[in-house]
Amino acid sequence: MASAKIGILTVSDRASRGEYEDRGGPAIREYLGEVLSSEWEPVARIVTDDQPLIEAALAELAADEGCCLIVTTGGTGPASRDVTPEATEAVCQKLMPGFGELMRKVSLEKVATAILSRQTAGIIGSALIVNLPGQPRAISECLDAVFPAIPYCIDLLGGPYLETDEARLKAFRPGKK
Amino acid sequence: MASAKIGILTVSDRASRGEYEDRGGPAIREYLGEVLSSEWEPVARIVTDDQPLIEAALAELAADEGCCLIVTTGGTGPASRDVTPEATEAVCQKLMPGFGELMRKVSLEKVATAILSRQTAGIIGSALIVNLPGQPRAISECLDAVFPAIPYCIDLLGGPYLETDEARLKAFRPGKK
Amino acid sequence: MASAKIGILTVSDRASRGEYEDRGGPAIREYLGEVLSSEWEPVARIVTDDQPLIEAALAELAADEGCCLIVTTGGTGPASRDVTPEATEAVCQKLMPGFGELMRKVSLEKVATAILSRQTAGIIGSALIVNLPGQPRAISECLDAVFPAIPYCIDLLGGPYLETDEARLKAFRPGKK
Repeated sequence: MASAKIGILTVSDRASRGEYEDRGGPAIREYLGEVLSSEWEPVARIVTDDQPLIEAALAELAADEGCCLIVTTGGTGPASRDVTPEATEAVCQKLMPGFGELMRKVSLEKVATAILSRQTAGIIGSALIVNLPGQPRAISECLDAVFPAIPYCIDLLGGPYLETDEARLKAFRPGKK
Repeated sequence: MASAKIGILTVSDRASRGEYEDRGGPAIREYLGEVLSSEWEPVARIVTDDQPLIEAALAELAADEGCCLIVTTGGTGPASRDVTPEATEAVCQKLMPGFGELMRKVSLEKVATAILSRQTAGIIGSALIVNLPGQPRAISECLDAVFPAIPYCIDLLGGPYLETDEARLKAFRPGKK
Repeated sequence: MASAKIGILTVSDRASRGEYEDRGGPAIREYLGEVLSSEWEPVARIVTDDQPLIEAALAELAADEGCCLIVTTGGTGPASRDVTPEATEAVCQKLMPGFGELMRKVSLEKVATAILSRQTAGIIGSALIVNLPGQPRAISECLDAVFPAIPYCIDLLGGPYLETDEARLKAFRPGKK
């Protein structure tokens, strides 16, 4: 069975210029390493908070690299440089509003400023894109909430069969126990 | 008092070709029959998962048939053929994000994959369109959540006065006990 | 320190023609007076439910008056004259879906018809726009839910440092106790 490619896109002016260590990308990689039990391969990219560059990176990860899932970190706030959701919406054929709703809901149990996060999700070609916040602690919180639905979503998109370590996180597939 | 016309639109490639029995449409009809105590009349249609055909059916049910409410079933998932929300957004003058948010919230109490449902609602002319999932069990779950607000919404759109069997489901109208 | 200017925009056909006393605008002003402990100055406007006029008022409050926050009341329902969310989306560079989601959630604990409210929020230039319903009792309910995140949002937009009376409402700023 071919290994599933998963794109990890860090969106950060400072991390892309090397002024700041990228912590979001490695946090996603570590999370996926803990949760996935089937074979997978990370494809990491770092870009500045520039909408055309983010769009190009998302398109490249989906079309050229053939990723079935692309997870972004950073650029989801209200500041003028935060444009990751706009880039995601621009490249996606379909939007998945339930992801952002649920991630804000779980983050709101921790911090009142969770409503400032504009993160979304959508489908580009046959890949699912999910925006995550920039803070490493918020990354696992958000992924714990939405990841149970991701393997079945990838199934519906005709992608590889992702399996999780059920002791850590149970993927939900309708009709399966 | 004129009978209220309610459109029931099944969106399904297989059901429209007769390869598969339509179960969503009849489930909606049965639900409305149980809940509504005022006179109403169903206007049923079945179309394939084709965006222009779904748009045409929604427009015909609203403009030609004069339905005050149009309920769709099917085509709300992430797969490439699932385009009911896009067709709904394309024909509506106003979107009603609260419907999708609440339906995903109640479905999420049952299945983690509820976040994959992209169902929305909106206003076309003076009719309310509400997207429901395809599965019959999810249909009554979603309608139980949003139906209490529907009669008052129809009032605001200048439509017929819908009444419910209050032992089964209580419609909420502000300022009314 | 310069006083923070806050726009209060009442959207109502009847209030703008003087047929009806504006109660939403004064309710917002009273709420802000109770909650804010730093200096602020209200800039009040009343317009009809006309999309171009609402857009012009929002733009004027942001660009000409230099408001850091603009709160609207009215025009968020499903009726044909209700176009405040459309006007807000048209003038904003960014949308903030978390505000509408949370306000509908808290209103839903009180009334089933909360899902009919289409209120949203977004960023125009360096100002935050937040739509509120028209009913005075719903105004404080909604502001209690979202206001804790507003001072930090204004910080991120480079605006004035808003402080609240913590006995009444605690603003949340990440990294601050």
